[in-house]
Amino acid sequence: MSAAAKTSPGNFFEDFQLGQEIRHATPRTVTLGDVALYNGLFGARFAVQSSDAFAQKIGYPRSPIDDLLVFHVVFGKTVPDISLNAVANLGYADCRFLKPVYPGATLNAVSEVIGLRENSNKKTGIVYVRSRGFDENGATVLDYARWVMVRKRDEAAPAAEEKVPELPKSVEPAQLGGACPVINPAAYDASLAGSPYRFGDYKVGEKIDHVDGVTVEEAEHQIATRLYQNTARIHFNQFAESKGRFGRRLIYGGHAISLARALSFNGLGNAFHVAAVNGGRHVSPLFAGCTVFAWSEVLASAELPGRNDVGALRLRTIATKDRPCADFPAKTGDDDEPAVILDLDYWVLMPR
Amino acid sequence: MSAAAKTSPGNFFEDFQLGQEIRHATPRTVTLGDVALYNGLFGARFAVQSSDAFAQKIGYPRSPIDDLLVFHVVFGKTVPDISLNAVANLGYADCRFLKPVYPGATLNAVSEVIGLRENSNKKTGIVYVRSRGFDENGATVLDYARWVMVRKRDEAAPAAEEKVPELPKSVEPAQLGGACPVINPAAYDASLAGSPYRFGDYKVGEKIDHVDGVTVEEAEHQIATRLYQNTARIHFNQFAESKGRFGRRLIYGGHAISLARALSFNGLGNAFHVAAVNGGRHVSPLFAGCTVFAWSEVLASAELPGRNDVGALRLRTIATKDRPCADFPAKTGDDDEPAVILDLDYWVLMPR
Amino acid sequence: MSAAAKTSPGNFFEDFQLGQEIRHATPRTVTLGDVALYNGLFGARFAVQSSDAFAQKIGYPRSPIDDLLVFHVVFGKTVPDISLNAVANLGYADCRFLKPVYPGATLNAVSEVIGLRENSNKKTGIVYVRSRGFDENGATVLDYARWVMVRKRDEAAPAAEEKVPELPKSVEPAQLGGACPVINPAAYDASLAGSPYRFGDYKVGEKIDHVDGVTVEEAEHQIATRLYQNTARIHFNQFAESKGRFGRRLIYGGHAISLARALSFNGLGNAFHVAAVNGGRHVSPLFAGCTVFAWSEVLASAELPGRNDVGALRLRTIATKDRPCADFPAKTGDDDEPAVILDLDYWVLMPR
Repeated sequence: MSAAAKTSPGNFFEDFQLGQEIRHATPRTVTLGDVALYNGLFGARFAVQSSDAFAQKIGYPRSPIDDLLVFHVVFGKTVPDISLNAVANLGYADCRFLKPVYPGATLNAVSEVIGLRENSNKKTGIVYVRSRGFDENGATVLDYARWVMVRKRDEAAPAAEEKVPELPKSVEPAQLGGACPVINPAAYDASLAGSPYRFGDYKVGEKIDHVDGVTVEEAEHQIATRLYQNTARIHFNQFAESKGRFGRRLIYGGHAISLARALSFNGLGNAFHVAAVNGGRHVSPLFAGCTVFAWSEVLASAELPGRNDVGALRLRTIATKDRPCADFPAKTGDDDEPAVILDLDYWVLMPR
Repeated sequence: MSAAAKTSPGNFFEDFQLGQEIRHATPRTVTLGDVALYNGLFGARFAVQSSDAFAQKIGYPRSPIDDLLVFHVVFGKTVPDISLNAVANLGYADCRFLKPVYPGATLNAVSEVIGLRENSNKKTGIVYVRSRGFDENGATVLDYARWVMVRKRDEAAPAAEEKVPELPKSVEPAQLGGACPVINPAAYDASLAGSPYRFGDYKVGEKIDHVDGVTVEEAEHQIATRLYQNTARIHFNQFAESKGRFGRRLIYGGHAISLARALSFNGLGNAFHVAAVNGGRHVSPLFAGCTVFAWSEVLASAELPGRNDVGALRLRTIATKDRPCADFPAKTGDDDEPAVILDLDYWVLMPR
Repeated sequence: MSAAAKTSPGNFFEDFQLGQEIRHATPRTVTLGDVALYNGLFGARFAVQSSDAFAQKIGYPRSPIDDLLVFHVVFGKTVPDISLNAVANLGYADCRFLKPVYPGATLNAVSEVIGLRENSNKKTGIVYVRSRGFDENGATVLDYARWVMVRKRDEAAPAAEEKVPELPKSVEPAQLGGACPVINPAAYDASLAGSPYRFGDYKVGEKIDHVDGVTVEEAEHQIATRLYQNTARIHFNQFAESKGRFGRRLIYGGHAISLARALSFNGLGNAFHVAAVNGGRHVSPLFAGCTVFAWSEVLASAELPGRNDVGALRLRTIATKDRPCADFPAKTGDDDEPAVILDLDYWVLMPR
C-alpha cells in the first residue's frame, strides 16, 4: 500500500452510489465552551439560548445549543466525505430540527445518497444527499437534504443511473416544533428578551431591515469553521487560494447564515428557534474584510397543529456584503443586486 | 404598524426621564466557556481567577469570574437602551462589585436615570444612569453610575428638567469587599501567585511601569465585545466607519481596561480583586494594530473595617498606545501626552 | 525598595544555579472552555479528544484534554522564570506524558536546573531544565527537559560550574502509555474515528504528506498563546518587534506543533495520543500570514511491554511555511529547504 493512500482524497462523483449510506467521522461533544466561542464569534442575543434562567422559566431544562451551531457541527462532519471535491454547494432543502440539543450532547452524522446526475460536460455531477445528525443516544436531532456539484476523478468513468429526488419546496408546519418543548408563553418575559413583538404582531409581506452591519475577519471565520471541524480547504489555505479563482480564502457559507441570524435579532428578537430551513442559496462569495448586512421578509405565518404556545413565521432573509439593506435589495436574475451573498428561506418559532 | 418600527433605534436624549427605570435585555448565563475565551483574549494571570484549587485554598468555593468580565457583561446589556445614540461615553463613578459571581450565574441589568442635562447646542444632552447587575436570584452583584452624551432626535424637543447628580469622587473603603469572601491570607501562596508583594509592601505615591506591551487585532476586540453582547455599532461595522470620523472601527473602551488590567499583573500580581472603580476616562480612541502599554500609581492604601485578611490599594492606571510607559506618561491638559488612551481610578484588594 | 523592583525582569544566565528548583506561577484550571477554544484554533479531529461518548466506549472516563494543550499550559508557566530573557529555544528531550488530564484539573509546574554552560562570547549561556507539570493532587502529568540560550545580565559575571546533562535521544517504549488508560481496541470504531489504519498498518520508513495547509492569523496565535498564559514578549508586542530582528511578531513555536499535529490527522487519524516527544527543533520562525503544511515519516514502531491494546509509532513530523509537502522537504544542513519551520520527533499511540 502506498503511503499516499492513507490520506483521504475525498469522494469524486463516480464514487457515489444511489442508496449508499455514509457514516461520517468525527463524533463531537458540544459543550458550554463551544457555545461561548460561538457567542463571541456571532454575538447572538436570543434570550432562550443566552440564559439558563430564562430558558427554565418558560419550560426548557436549560438553555439549548443554538440551532445553527448544531447545523454547522453536523454539516462539518459531512464535508470530508461529501464535498471535499465539490465545485459548488448548490442548495439545501427539507432541513428540520427535530430535538433540542443541550451542552454535553455528542453529535454524529450519517448521509444517504438520494440522487445523482452527471453534468453534460462529463467533468462534474450533482450529488444529492440526505444527512442526519444524531445524539449519543441515537436520536435524530437534525435531518436535511443538500446537493453539491462534485468533480469526477476520471471524465471517462461511466455515469451512474440518473435520479433527481423530489424535495419539498418548504417544510410543512405540522413538521415544525420537535426541537422546541412546549413552552409557557405567559412566562416569556418579552422585556428581558428585548422585543415586545410576538407571533401575532408579524404580518405576511412585512419587510424588516436589520440595520446593523458586521465586518468579518479572517481569524473569525477560520476559528468558527474549525470549531465545526469543517475541513473544506478553500476556507483555510491562503497559499493555495492566492493562485485560485478568487485570490483569497472563501468564507464558509454557513458563516454568513450565522451572521445574518445574529443581525436578525434586531427586528425579530423573539424568533428564538430556527425550526426548519426550506431552502438556501449562497448567491455570491463572502470574503474577510467585507461588512455583512441583512433584511428579512415574512413569507408566511402558521399555527402549529396542537400547539398554542408558539407560532411559526416563514422568513426569507437576504444578506449582503458592503451594502446596507434599507431598500431591501435582492438578486433573482443576473442583472440584480450583485452585493447579495445569501438568500435563505426558513421557519422560526415565536411565542404567541 | 410600519415594519421599521420593529427594529430598535435606541433612545435619544428626549426619550429619557428622571427616575425612569429601564430593565435591559438580554439575560446571560456566564460560563466556563466565557471565562476561557476571556482568558484567551486578555491573558489574565491572577491566581484566584485562574485556579479553582488556589481559590479554594484561601476560602473561595471555586474561582470567581473575573470582575471585569462581570462588568463588561452588565455594561453590554445597557448599551442598546442607554448608549446606542451616544456621541461620547463621558465617565464612570461609584462602581462597586458587591458579590462574587461564579460560572453558571445568570446576569441581568437594570438602569435608573439619575440625571439629565441638555447641552447648550440643543443637539445633545448628558444622561446620567445608575446601572445595577443582578444574578439569577436577584442579588445585586455590581452597581455603578455612568454618564454619556446622547443625541437628540429632534433639536426642537423641549428639554427635561435639568438635574446633575452628586457622585462620590471615590468609593469609601468601608464599601469595599462585598465581592471578596473573607480569605485566609496565610494560605495564599505568593510564590504560586507569582509575586512576593502583599498589601503592606506598596507605598502611596509608588509608580509601577507594567513593562509589557500587547498589540490588538480587529478579530480580538470584536470577539470580546460580542461576547459581552455589546451592540455598539462603531466597534463592528467597517463599511460605515470607513466613512466616519476615524475611518475605522473604534475599539470598545472596556477592551483597553481589560488589557491594562492584564498588563498590571506584572508589578501587581497579588491585586487579585477589583473591588471598585472610582472613575475612569477613555482619553483617546484605541484602534486595531496599536500596541497597548500601562503603568500604575498607588493613590491610597486603606484597611477594610473589620477585616484583617485583605487591604485595599487605590490605583490610578494609565494605558497608552504605541508608547512604552517607563517614564509614566499622563495627560491632564491638551498639551500632554497624546498617546494616553485610558486613565482609570480604582480600588484593588490584596492579601495582607 | 524601588518601584521597578516589583516587576519581574525574568532570570538571566547568572541567576540560575545547578540543582535549583523553581516553583512556577500561575496555577491553572483547564476547563471545557479551554478545550473549545483550542479546538477552534487548531481544528483537531482525533475522536478520543472530540467525543466523550467515543472516549467512554473504549475505556476512558471521558474525553481527555489534548496532550499538546497540557504541554502548552505547563510550558507557559515556565516562561516567566526560564525563558523571558532567552535568545533562542534550543531543544526539547525526554518529554513524557504520564497521566491523562481531564477538564477541571488544575495544573502547576516546577522546573529544576539540570545543566549550565556559558557560551564563549560571555554574553549568553545555555540553561538546561527539567520541567514537570502536576495536577491538583500533586500527581506528575508531564515531564520534559528543555534547553534555552539565555542572556547574561552582566558579561563580567563569573560563569557557573559547567554541566551538560545527558539526555536520551528517544524515550524508551517501556516508558510510554502512562497517560493512556488500557483501552478496548475492539470498541474503537475506526469508521467514526475517520481512518481505517491501525498500528499494524504503518511501516517503518513510510512517509505521509498531510496534504492540507492552514494560514495563521495574528489574532489566532495571540489568543492561543495567551490561553496558555505564556508571556514571552516577542509574540505580542508589534511596537517593539517592528524595530526588532524580524520586524514583526514571532509566533510561539508550540503553535506550529499544534498546527502540524492537527494537519497530521489526514493520514494518521488513529494516532489519538501523543505519548512522548523525543526531540524537537524550531528550524525557522513562523509569522502570521504564512500557510503551514506538514508531512511525517514513521521512524520506528514498537509494542508497549505488557499491553496489547495499543502500539507506539515513532514519528518525525516536519512542518513548512508556504511550501506544500508532497515531496517531503527537510532541512538538515544550511543548503536545504529554507521553508522548514519545525522538525519534531515523537511517539504516538494507535489502537492495535
